[in-house]
Amino acid sequence: MALTQYYTATSLDGFIADPDNSLGWLFSRNQEKDGPQNYGAFIAGVGALAMGSTTYEWILDHEFAGKDPADWKWPYDIPCWVFTHRQLPIVPDAQIEFTSADVATVHQATVGSAGNRNVWIVGGGDLAGQFADARLLDEVIVSIAPVTLGGGAPLLSRRIELRLDELGRNGDFAVAKFSVVR
Amino acid sequence: MALTQYYTATSLDGFIADPDNSLGWLFSRNQEKDGPQNYGAFIAGVGALAMGSTTYEWILDHEFAGKDPADWKWPYDIPCWVFTHRQLPIVPDAQIEFTSADVATVHQATVGSAGNRNVWIVGGGDLAGQFADARLLDEVIVSIAPVTLGGGAPLLSRRIELRLDELGRNGDFAVAKFSVVR
Repeated sequence: MALTQYYTATSLDGFIADPDNSLGWLFSRNQEKDGPQNYGAFIAGVGALAMGSTTYEWILDHEFAGKDPADWKWPYDIPCWVFTHRQLPIVPDAQIEFTSADVATVHQATVGSAGNRNVWIVGGGDLAGQFADARLLDEVIVSIAPVTLGGGAPLLSRRIELRLDELGRNGDFAVAKFSVVR
Repeated sequence: MALTQYYTATSLDGFIADPDNSLGWLFSRNQEKDGPQNYGAFIAGVGALAMGSTTYEWILDHEFAGKDPADWKWPYDIPCWVFTHRQLPIVPDAQIEFTSADVATVHQATVGSAGNRNVWIVGGGDLAGQFADARLLDEVIVSIAPVTLGGGAPLLSRRIELRLDELGRNGDFAVAKFSVVR
């Protein structure tokens, strides 16, 4: 049975981006590519993505800044649903569907598309919370960076009961996998 | 050399109390008394305490509610400095000093009193942050409960660089010890 997973990095105090919407505090850390909860092993199990518009625009701003749209290279080769009520820039040759439907409707589409593989809620915290509200979130998988930020974009802006399933260290990070308790 | 330690429990999203100032989300979890980072082993190494007035009043409200002040039993048998600009209720037969001095002055007093043992910054997050600002905080030791709260009292309302020194599991909790990087 495919799982719906919120996989993200967070500061120790629960922020996924700092007050300037930067990830500099994250990318400066050491991580072992083959270590516990590494991205390669995780993404190999994922068949579809869902993300909010802020996450989508963050990718556009940070990965494609200064480049001609024809040269934009979308980092995922699986279908991605982007929640938005706005007209957003389109990345060429990417499997992206913009949607303003509710999370349950989109969830059905992602699960159908993912087949036996999992659905990754890329971010942000409020979108992951909406999936949890709809009882559609199965796992929260975090890499905890050794820093507090004191503010920024919250990891999960909800009260959600979890159960610790796996814990390990990867480079500078504490990595933990939680089941959502329903 | 004695260390100045901020030892606390936190939700996964970095709150030490929920929006109602409750710890119900914390006390409902399982913890092994002899497990990693257990309180008994920790407090045995502590020679003096410092806390903010909110933490002090939380203890009064939750430990002593409905009891005659003569029956209040202060949970610590080592000297404790309480930061406040107000007149607070006094616990009989407790080694408590109310202070409105700056953290550096109080730190000197706690270290002098603790001897070879450590100083515990009991809370809250802003007081621990003030010690960090003054470059007087050595360690952040957290028990991470398997829950997100979505709001409440922040773990540490500052940007603070850390290094992960120890990681383990104790019952329902992920427990981690960090050095403060200066």
